[in-house]
Amino acid sequence: MIIILKENTTAQEIENLAGIVKSHGVVPHISQGMHQTIMGLVGDTTRIDIESISQLKIVEAVRRIQEPFKNANRKFHPLDTVIKVGDAVIGGGSLTLIAGPCSVESEEQIISVARNVKSSGAKILRGGAFKPRTSPYAFQGLREEGIKLLLEAKKDTGLPIVTEIMDLSQLDLFDEIDVIQVGARNMQNFELLKQLGHSGKPVLLKRGLSNTYQELLMSAEYIMAFGNEQVILCERGIRTFETYTRNTLDISAVPALKKLSHLPVVIDPSHAAGIAEFVSPLSMAAVASGADGLIIEVHNDPSKAKCDGAQSLTPENFDTLAKKLHILKNAMAEA
Amino acid sequence: MIIILKENTTAQEIENLAGIVKSHGVVPHISQGMHQTIMGLVGDTTRIDIESISQLKIVEAVRRIQEPFKNANRKFHPLDTVIKVGDAVIGGGSLTLIAGPCSVESEEQIISVARNVKSSGAKILRGGAFKPRTSPYAFQGLREEGIKLLLEAKKDTGLPIVTEIMDLSQLDLFDEIDVIQVGARNMQNFELLKQLGHSGKPVLLKRGLSNTYQELLMSAEYIMAFGNEQVILCERGIRTFETYTRNTLDISAVPALKKLSHLPVVIDPSHAAGIAEFVSPLSMAAVASGADGLIIEVHNDPSKAKCDGAQSLTPENFDTLAKKLHILKNAMAEA
Amino acid sequence: MIIILKENTTAQEIENLAGIVKSHGVVPHISQGMHQTIMGLVGDTTRIDIESISQLKIVEAVRRIQEPFKNANRKFHPLDTVIKVGDAVIGGGSLTLIAGPCSVESEEQIISVARNVKSSGAKILRGGAFKPRTSPYAFQGLREEGIKLLLEAKKDTGLPIVTEIMDLSQLDLFDEIDVIQVGARNMQNFELLKQLGHSGKPVLLKRGLSNTYQELLMSAEYIMAFGNEQVILCERGIRTFETYTRNTLDISAVPALKKLSHLPVVIDPSHAAGIAEFVSPLSMAAVASGADGLIIEVHNDPSKAKCDGAQSLTPENFDTLAKKLHILKNAMAEA
Amino acid sequence: MIIILKENTTAQEIENLAGIVKSHGVVPHISQGMHQTIMGLVGDTTRIDIESISQLKIVEAVRRIQEPFKNANRKFHPLDTVIKVGDAVIGGGSLTLIAGPCSVESEEQIISVARNVKSSGAKILRGGAFKPRTSPYAFQGLREEGIKLLLEAKKDTGLPIVTEIMDLSQLDLFDEIDVIQVGARNMQNFELLKQLGHSGKPVLLKRGLSNTYQELLMSAEYIMAFGNEQVILCERGIRTFETYTRNTLDISAVPALKKLSHLPVVIDPSHAAGIAEFVSPLSMAAVASGADGLIIEVHNDPSKAKCDGAQSLTPENFDTLAKKLHILKNAMAEA
Repeated sequence: MIIILKENTTAQEIENLAGIVKSHGVVPHISQGMHQTIMGLVGDTTRIDIESISQLKIVEAVRRIQEPFKNANRKFHPLDTVIKVGDAVIGGGSLTLIAGPCSVESEEQIISVARNVKSSGAKILRGGAFKPRTSPYAFQGLREEGIKLLLEAKKDTGLPIVTEIMDLSQLDLFDEIDVIQVGARNMQNFELLKQLGHSGKPVLLKRGLSNTYQELLMSAEYIMAFGNEQVILCERGIRTFETYTRNTLDISAVPALKKLSHLPVVIDPSHAAGIAEFVSPLSMAAVASGADGLIIEVHNDPSKAKCDGAQSLTPENFDTLAKKLHILKNAMAEA
Repeated sequence: MIIILKENTTAQEIENLAGIVKSHGVVPHISQGMHQTIMGLVGDTTRIDIESISQLKIVEAVRRIQEPFKNANRKFHPLDTVIKVGDAVIGGGSLTLIAGPCSVESEEQIISVARNVKSSGAKILRGGAFKPRTSPYAFQGLREEGIKLLLEAKKDTGLPIVTEIMDLSQLDLFDEIDVIQVGARNMQNFELLKQLGHSGKPVLLKRGLSNTYQELLMSAEYIMAFGNEQVILCERGIRTFETYTRNTLDISAVPALKKLSHLPVVIDPSHAAGIAEFVSPLSMAAVASGADGLIIEVHNDPSKAKCDGAQSLTPENFDTLAKKLHILKNAMAEA
Repeated sequence: MIIILKENTTAQEIENLAGIVKSHGVVPHISQGMHQTIMGLVGDTTRIDIESISQLKIVEAVRRIQEPFKNANRKFHPLDTVIKVGDAVIGGGSLTLIAGPCSVESEEQIISVARNVKSSGAKILRGGAFKPRTSPYAFQGLREEGIKLLLEAKKDTGLPIVTEIMDLSQLDLFDEIDVIQVGARNMQNFELLKQLGHSGKPVLLKRGLSNTYQELLMSAEYIMAFGNEQVILCERGIRTFETYTRNTLDISAVPALKKLSHLPVVIDPSHAAGIAEFVSPLSMAAVASGADGLIIEVHNDPSKAKCDGAQSLTPENFDTLAKKLHILKNAMAEA
Repeated sequence: MIIILKENTTAQEIENLAGIVKSHGVVPHISQGMHQTIMGLVGDTTRIDIESISQLKIVEAVRRIQEPFKNANRKFHPLDTVIKVGDAVIGGGSLTLIAGPCSVESEEQIISVARNVKSSGAKILRGGAFKPRTSPYAFQGLREEGIKLLLEAKKDTGLPIVTEIMDLSQLDLFDEIDVIQVGARNMQNFELLKQLGHSGKPVLLKRGLSNTYQELLMSAEYIMAFGNEQVILCERGIRTFETYTRNTLDISAVPALKKLSHLPVVIDPSHAAGIAEFVSPLSMAAVASGADGLIIEVHNDPSKAKCDGAQSLTPENFDTLAKKLHILKNAMAEA
């Protein structure tokens, strides 16, 4: 962090600021020019609030050089984090397929889809029990009942389960759930993140619709700072001016997040595209760019799905895609 | 709502769709062209899920004509909603000033600021107890203690209090709070909105950083659909490519939200600007465009504020601004 | 500008960089820490290409402290620029109304509108001859003929004319035009800006739909660097996720641009709103925030306008608005 | 296109509107409900100005069903357009590599890079002669001299040339250039597009930083409507809130543009990323998603490049990447 001081700052004022900085365990390094004094901060600046420094009367500007996150930072943790969930391994060069319906609708539906996606190579089952919907009049998910049905499917197929939590009051229901998903709209629900820090379970953290990489990593930092290192980052499309697709997949998030952080990065091509026929090319792109996994919506009868049918693959489509991804992944290994 | 059907749809398929539509209490009106059949839906379409219709095999496109919200819609409730909080009246042509510090920091601080803003004409005291911060290492607010101090300030000055809730587990602490604020990052925390629908207290609902008017009104609709009609809409700046200001105040939100809805509209120029010297011109603009109120950050010593000091007014600045706003409001009455 | 060097940079490499910097007439000021060396540049850094410095092998990061524009910068030119066009004075605390139709359609239309807006207090007539349209199949303006009709209206009413140029090949036709408008889509048409720098005529420069204040000021800088100081900045709404309004008026642009620059700032509420009934509240907001002028679309029969009818005021609406603005401006003077 | 009429519209008014519609060669199809009358338009609606219909007094809303472009529309031209430039073939399933420096800097530089990229498999040489720069003080390109040097490199290597035009006054200089590039900032320079429609040369049309697919295709439509069918669409990253990368590559543009249009789609990973090490993963993603080609910045000494060095590959990097792309493309053929 570099603090640029205003002209005419006195030696006493500079000394005071140096004192504040030292109290945060950081070493100030002062460089006095004819017109301008600059203070460089050496050490761990993640705990320094850039805003409270900026508003001091003697400060003209503050520029951050280091990232404000530490636990999630690859600089302090060079090796890939690898997360194990049942037989699935996420991170470290593998390609993990997560698949299942937008919403759990019935026991028959979820077990049928679970068996299908398992036979095509999915290692984790997804399915929504609590559904965040823009309208209070839209289907809100089967809620508690949905969680029970997911656990039935787990018993039947052996697949571990990932499903979304919407509020920390629901946490008790997630005891036997394997991976807790935090949805895009809750990425900055900081009270929830803190509790998930205490939960000890892997968390699939979705990037908010208009959030930056740094904000995503700061939310991961919340979970990690409260004791939980098992965070999976998920890019699911951001909001842009393009409305032909539901959202815009930011494919650069794969190399960028992997450079900034050691955490695994998973892509959700279904919500990114919103259109089933684009799920395949986006999945291929994700794997080609180095993603650690994919989370894909699969429904036994998309035209009757209670939500997101337009972006769901049939089990047959998913099977075809899984085969293509396998060929691609092998080619990547050679290249 | 208008449903455009694909070519070659059979009479039987159209009849089936008409049946589905009727089951939602809406009358289908079919117009059969040579190439294209169109079904117009007459009645209350707010409860029809546009998405589930879109994904049907015979449907080419669906276009919504009416707004998907009803309780918040001015069409069904032409008169302005007016909300009374202590002596304050929000909506219906009045101009209500809400002021106070970003964070409650100490009893002395909050009482001193409360007395100051009251004497300048503020009718409600704002102050953060629970603070949503991007970094887990930043000051998180005094929390329970902050609520207590706000209630001390209420006792001292008689000013009603508005403060932010971050999670529904905190709801019990808000018993004596007058207006519950939902922050921008929680605008689509639907579980929280539902509970606030049951709370019976006025809710100040802030627009999310990248949300549309319709999404804001759908979040208001959540609160209203669960039984609480006292919702105050708050525009606090949206995220745009411009980073010179902290956010971008969308001043058109004032006439637009007032046209779409009967709910009062309040502007937060402090978070919109992020720079104290712009708070005055933005406040003037808000009143000139017809806003029902302003929520402004005032701190006794901005350069030492624990958060948002850069955008806080001193009590003196606020007093000067309040006088200017008074002159402006009078001129508006003549114009 | 501050250059942060990578660790292990040698003394020789630092000396070489200092040499490069000096060759741009800027004094390097080196501060060597234990881990990090920082080079602060003192002097006029507008001519230093931040990008070419960033890509040097020894450079970790570069942070700009000063703005990259100079001619347009209030720091080097503290007094407001005031531009005189006929009887109109733009800048320096006055409020100038510019009004007229989106497109010139006929002699009768333009003269009738010109007389009307003049009688309501407009000081400059606007009207499009060359029209940038998204579709090649839409009305492209009367072009040369439109310029002639504008000059007829000027002769008839004495009002100076502002109209848009779309390509520098059209420049000869603008000989008798008083103010040349550069549209939002041409804000970064750098070849055009250079020529307008030579033209000696006032230029009304519209902000691009997704451009920042700095980019707008850099485009003004192009015109000024090539010799023309008469630039009027125009905020006309930016593109955001909100589509209920045509664009989103960035009202903070008024205080922000006036702080950064000495150039006058004019607001176009018609293109910002896209809806006639919002033109009045946005115009009021613009004046309350300190704008130097307004450019408003007025059409004698909006429902038959060849473009932008939905956002055009009738002459009667404009007259009512002009009276309200007058009252507001007077109140501002008192406040 | 569907026109929703206001309640209480008279039969005579509807008939008048039907007449207007028919005059555009489109058949109106009226469906009269109890409350609402809907007019569906059957036929080619590309020439109907949706805006001028919207502003009619009897119209409540207009919704477009068909795309407003025709020449560029795959519906009317199902087969892929294939463009031949020298030995290069763009479109129809091939993968064409276009490579070269951001700017032409000297004869030695451009010839050396040209030979290098040719030997790695590039089929077209890129290089900037006219450079659009945000700052008037930045290097503006070698201009005429740059064009001459590109033609030297063409003579030396046989590679066809693509280079950017910034203004139509430069068109004469492009006589021997093979593909004319329209930069992102000129995507809606409609006068330039019209002239390129007459030029008969292939045009590489870059998507604007904040433009939609439809706007890009409407700009292609300009070129095609004026007689030139050889348009190559180029996605080069859009502006989003993420600033870690220079722009955000919208990878969905590949399947989306290819579904909407028959024109070839090329990806520019260099400008999208702005960071050399991300060019490889983004290139892989582009090919995996089905792109017809890549345009990549390659410089013999990136740290000394006059522009965009930070995003340029060395010839060695490019050679490695080309080999990986070859393996990927072969795998795609199997998959």
